[in-house]
Amino acid sequence: MNMKAPWITYRPEIKVMDCTVRDGGLINDHCFEDGFVKAVYQTCIAAGIDYMEIGYCASRKLFATGKSGDWRFCEEDAIRRIVGENDSPMKLSVMADAGKCDWRNDILPKKDSVIDVVRVACYVHQIPEAADMIKDAKDKGYEVSCNLMAVSTIPEPDLDQALEVMAASDADVLCVVDSNGALYAEQIELLVKKYMAAVQCKKQIGIHAHNNLQLGFANTIEAIIHGANRLDATMAGLGRGAGNCPMELLLGFLRNPKFKIRPVLKLLQDHFVALRGQMDWGPSVPYNLSGQLNQHPRMAIAARSGPDKDKYVEFYDKCVSEG
Amino acid sequence: MNMKAPWITYRPEIKVMDCTVRDGGLINDHCFEDGFVKAVYQTCIAAGIDYMEIGYCASRKLFATGKSGDWRFCEEDAIRRIVGENDSPMKLSVMADAGKCDWRNDILPKKDSVIDVVRVACYVHQIPEAADMIKDAKDKGYEVSCNLMAVSTIPEPDLDQALEVMAASDADVLCVVDSNGALYAEQIELLVKKYMAAVQCKKQIGIHAHNNLQLGFANTIEAIIHGANRLDATMAGLGRGAGNCPMELLLGFLRNPKFKIRPVLKLLQDHFVALRGQMDWGPSVPYNLSGQLNQHPRMAIAARSGPDKDKYVEFYDKCVSEG
Repeated sequence: MNMKAPWITYRPEIKVMDCTVRDGGLINDHCFEDGFVKAVYQTCIAAGIDYMEIGYCASRKLFATGKSGDWRFCEEDAIRRIVGENDSPMKLSVMADAGKCDWRNDILPKKDSVIDVVRVACYVHQIPEAADMIKDAKDKGYEVSCNLMAVSTIPEPDLDQALEVMAASDADVLCVVDSNGALYAEQIELLVKKYMAAVQCKKQIGIHAHNNLQLGFANTIEAIIHGANRLDATMAGLGRGAGNCPMELLLGFLRNPKFKIRPVLKLLQDHFVALRGQMDWGPSVPYNLSGQLNQHPRMAIAARSGPDKDKYVEFYDKCVSEG
Repeated sequence: MNMKAPWITYRPEIKVMDCTVRDGGLINDHCFEDGFVKAVYQTCIAAGIDYMEIGYCASRKLFATGKSGDWRFCEEDAIRRIVGENDSPMKLSVMADAGKCDWRNDILPKKDSVIDVVRVACYVHQIPEAADMIKDAKDKGYEVSCNLMAVSTIPEPDLDQALEVMAASDADVLCVVDSNGALYAEQIELLVKKYMAAVQCKKQIGIHAHNNLQLGFANTIEAIIHGANRLDATMAGLGRGAGNCPMELLLGFLRNPKFKIRPVLKLLQDHFVALRGQMDWGPSVPYNLSGQLNQHPRMAIAARSGPDKDKYVEFYDKCVSEG
């Protein structure tokens, strides 16, 4: 039997994006203190991480701004308060949700911004707006990713059509996004192969996994095996609901010596041990169930935020009765 | 592209073993109260689980018995106190460690015991004693498994030799055991294929995964894909160190309608929420690191049991300095 070990080498094309502040902001309405955001930023640089996504560029006109934190809007001043001119090799990203941002006005020309990447997030019915957003961001000078969300819920013909549009767009990256945390490895394999076939080597494929089934890390590895070169992860897996692929696991797996895990461990002990007492995330039973049932995590999030957070049977009965 | 979905069917040959009390006993010196063990036992039956491993049959002569609980010894009286005559379709298992049990005397003839299965656990240097233990248990009338531990640390020639001995034995099952929780999916694939080739369809292959890298469940699925039909899991993943493949995830994945998840959810809310405050298990950072470094979890267990349990950098420096 061939016992060679491809996993001890590495693929230089692989790049890692930290989404801690962006995805984690969905737990606390984007209200991270500057000290925390700076610590994540500096850790990412020290760890050799390629990209950091700092938040959303939602529209202040569309959303009440009173309670949401700065990382929902990512205005240039707020970002520069943390990163200055970002005098580092790490690129900065913002996520632009179709239907939630005034992208024509709020996304500045690249020359006026410290941001490098715009990731356009959309549901499948929003593909037409996403296509316009991709063109706008590309014309303004940004690297662009298209993140088609909740792929586990998209019927095959719709996905094929969406992939045709995305493949024809100017986006540099198409990202497989398992918003429900519902996919198993074999499904990740099929999707990554499908996305790879659609782009015909002209774009990179990314993976954004959620951890409902404790498969966030495993599915990221599976995507790597089949050719994904853009990997999303977050510190301690921080992110909405069950959270994401944990950065400390991903960096421990990747063999490229440019990645350093020690700065991440320092960040975890200095900031995330305390955060565990203040925010709820990770693959608890309600998220296990919403993943198994391929449901949006909103019911599980509601369950986990109240006194019934550990009433698993009641939650299960509710999930299957509404099915 | 072929988009058929083999994962929505099931393989009737697959059988699940609950190891909650056995592996979990390594955290609390096997001191579970009868009420807890009974609850696990009754839940396993209600959930359609095929086997329950209730503990070790260590020798009372070899070990001081003052502080260890009954589930380290699994004397017939203790087991019957929980299960009576085990009037259920579920089979009961005990684990017999090479070098730690007086198997000739302590393992009764099958006709005198409510136990159905003996799982012989050994390190690779103990294969000769394990072979004797397998023969003894088989001659006494039991179904027998051979669990060669810490396979991630065994050099290839040693593993090949051990597999030759185990394949020639009367064991019904050979189990791939990732004691260090160090293996990635591609390694699981190679090992399961190697074990399958060794037994030439004459025995079943099992998988016992640990969860150091949040891969316990993923690696169990990977083993299934490549032919493993004997799956170990524990309620809430309870088990030494990072714990095991969580039963609630595994049952949610398996499609055989005989398995029911709801009784497991009831057990988790009634017993395991409280247990979280009393025992430490699961893939915390020190276990992530011992898995990444393919080390025995003993240093991580020591770290997690003291006031420095969240001093990750110090722990990392200690791990790599001893390398």
